[in-house]
Amino acid sequence: MRMVDIIDHKRQGQELTDEEIQYFVDGVVNQTIPDYQISALLMAIYFQSMTTSEQTTLTMKMMESGDHLDLSSIPGIKVDKHSTGGVGDKTSLPLAAMVAALGIPVPMISGRGLGHTGGTLDKLEAIPGFKVDLSEEEFKDQVKQIGLAIVGATGEIAPADKYIYALRDVTDTVDSIPLIASSIMSKKIASGTDALIIDVKTGAGAFMKAEDDAVKLAEALVRIGRQAGLDCKAIISDMNQPLGHKVGNTLEIEETLDLLKGKGPADLLELVLTLGSQMVVMGKKASDIAVGRKMLEQTIEDGSALAKFKAMIEAQGGDPRVVDDYSLMPHAKQKVDFLAPRSGVISQLTADEIGVAAMLLGGGRQKSDDQLNYGVGIEVHKKIGEIVTKGEPVFTIHTDQDDLTEVKALLRASLMVEETAQAPTLIHQIVDPK
Amino acid sequence: MRMVDIIDHKRQGQELTDEEIQYFVDGVVNQTIPDYQISALLMAIYFQSMTTSEQTTLTMKMMESGDHLDLSSIPGIKVDKHSTGGVGDKTSLPLAAMVAALGIPVPMISGRGLGHTGGTLDKLEAIPGFKVDLSEEEFKDQVKQIGLAIVGATGEIAPADKYIYALRDVTDTVDSIPLIASSIMSKKIASGTDALIIDVKTGAGAFMKAEDDAVKLAEALVRIGRQAGLDCKAIISDMNQPLGHKVGNTLEIEETLDLLKGKGPADLLELVLTLGSQMVVMGKKASDIAVGRKMLEQTIEDGSALAKFKAMIEAQGGDPRVVDDYSLMPHAKQKVDFLAPRSGVISQLTADEIGVAAMLLGGGRQKSDDQLNYGVGIEVHKKIGEIVTKGEPVFTIHTDQDDLTEVKALLRASLMVEETAQAPTLIHQIVDPK
Repeated sequence: MRMVDIIDHKRQGQELTDEEIQYFVDGVVNQTIPDYQISALLMAIYFQSMTTSEQTTLTMKMMESGDHLDLSSIPGIKVDKHSTGGVGDKTSLPLAAMVAALGIPVPMISGRGLGHTGGTLDKLEAIPGFKVDLSEEEFKDQVKQIGLAIVGATGEIAPADKYIYALRDVTDTVDSIPLIASSIMSKKIASGTDALIIDVKTGAGAFMKAEDDAVKLAEALVRIGRQAGLDCKAIISDMNQPLGHKVGNTLEIEETLDLLKGKGPADLLELVLTLGSQMVVMGKKASDIAVGRKMLEQTIEDGSALAKFKAMIEAQGGDPRVVDDYSLMPHAKQKVDFLAPRSGVISQLTADEIGVAAMLLGGGRQKSDDQLNYGVGIEVHKKIGEIVTKGEPVFTIHTDQDDLTEVKALLRASLMVEETAQAPTLIHQIVDPK
Repeated sequence: MRMVDIIDHKRQGQELTDEEIQYFVDGVVNQTIPDYQISALLMAIYFQSMTTSEQTTLTMKMMESGDHLDLSSIPGIKVDKHSTGGVGDKTSLPLAAMVAALGIPVPMISGRGLGHTGGTLDKLEAIPGFKVDLSEEEFKDQVKQIGLAIVGATGEIAPADKYIYALRDVTDTVDSIPLIASSIMSKKIASGTDALIIDVKTGAGAFMKAEDDAVKLAEALVRIGRQAGLDCKAIISDMNQPLGHKVGNTLEIEETLDLLKGKGPADLLELVLTLGSQMVVMGKKASDIAVGRKMLEQTIEDGSALAKFKAMIEAQGGDPRVVDDYSLMPHAKQKVDFLAPRSGVISQLTADEIGVAAMLLGGGRQKSDDQLNYGVGIEVHKKIGEIVTKGEPVFTIHTDQDDLTEVKALLRASLMVEETAQAPTLIHQIVDPK
């Protein structure tokens, strides 16, 4: 087999065989295929796309190129959730606790943030002592014991994907649906879950700005997941504005705890219930999503979800007292209000700029080795569609730095106040391709 | 400027700016752009193509990346001819002599053969003593003195093209018209000619099998040439069967001399007159091609073309006695006839297979450093549309080797004899885009 022939087949729009995809992934991992041939194939895939079958094969071969978990020793249907990333998106945290509180095992492998979006692991590390780097055995034991663990990847997950991703970044082949989908799914399938709900964000703060593209990606992800044997669904949710009212690591743990205490923001709760009800059905604890939704609401009312979250903090070495005393987490030295420049209705609140502002405060990473400042962030008091009076605080900046010129400019750019505006629809659709 | 942005612009189908193309070519030559980005751009160009303006800029920047000749010290309008390559295609040799005999300077820089097609320089070297590696000064002096020289490139011509070509070969981006056209023209423009006639071959033995593709390439070549300031036209000519009756180095010099003596094969003569009449008009020695054609025919009748060819042989150190005594050139030890397997009309005589057969005999190169055996080759007694009787020789194999199994298998595969067949049209069209 020759790589130049594989490139040629794809360039001509043919479906690559399993053997060709295997040859390609092996050649990437063993470094026997030169980068210039890899990038030529990636560009050909960008233009000619891949069938679901090709995408599944690529996903599985990339998954098999590295370490992958076998969770069969954990009883029950394991469910997981993946999001394509957003600003203020702490959904995984309350969601995992609520679903686990219903006796469904949630072995969640999460990531760190980069750029304008935060990472679940970073948020958890705002809790003093919280450890995300468990061994595989510790991870499995914790899920067996308390039904829930949120950790970083152990071992080397999908090294072929890692190598290909680095090349895509410098060869302008990032925004190819087959390549995005296989990259995401190779890592998720490696985590050993039985079922997966995927939250694909759309809007100004999302990677997929257009809903059409978001739906295409969601369908690709679900189809790959199902071909790989996972019970899989996706939703398309709005990321024009940040989710909830808090952006920043400590701030988002606070909002998580608020939600689990029944005091969470409406949009975050709605998203958690939408995703969670699908997971409860997948986990076979409810026959339909309306029942699942009621059961999840009950975990808030009876305190079982909060208890589950607290148990996880304790199990992973964190200080469980934060649940009742938020001051035990790092906080910024000062709070600076950002006031409404005029009266009217908020018509724009671009998630991108607010995410970058939080990053510049030290709450996120520009480069992967940046150190985080957990206490800083942005509080968002008003959301799109809400009335605001000139001089009223729209944002509160939690900061350790005095020069806020750039941060304020970003917040100003994110904001538009007009005579009238509608709140955007949060849940655009459920993606359940036949 | 960042290479990834240049790739992105082309991937999205935008026209690259002169600065972007300059940045790319500079980065190729200086090796500051990694191969994986070069190949990603090449694949994006394959899918999105390039405008004539982009192709001209790419051509000129590649040309400027290396040595290029200034022929302004040679009086008159210098004319040259380029062919995309064929089997038995010795056209340049009689053509250059006939045009030069009319007082039009022909400074021709030619190449060597590779694969199934022969090279003009290889053919000339069948003449004992003939030197093709003149210095730039020797080359110019000879054109000034006798109006004609056929040499190899001096210095380093278009190194950017050389590097890009090597990458194209292994990344499946060879058959892209903008890349083919800029590669050809960067080398031709470097030769310093004022006018250029291009012979784009089409058919089973040509790189461009389909006439549509041949026309597209011809138009691209002419447009680039004109934008670069050259007087430029192209023709599309047939390469379903070999040109003339002889394939091989000595054999093709013999056929050249026969033609100059008025005894050449009809198809070769027709092609020479078609190309040559355009060159005579470009060289401003005739007002229209009908007049030019008559003048060229006259150079055969009056012996001036043969004298010009002989003068060139002498000027370049070759033995001029070969003109009258072909036995002074190398010849194969034996001749083996290949007989018609049945009676009928020749309906197929694939140039590819006959070219490869000649190469296997030692007349061509499989690798660029292969040594040639000048005397070997294939004589083609019958062409498509001609009647043949079973047992009559169709080919004569001129060979120094005894095992002709593979050669005969190729000749057998090239040949089809049917009840009836039409001779293919030799000159498909003149390409003169507005």
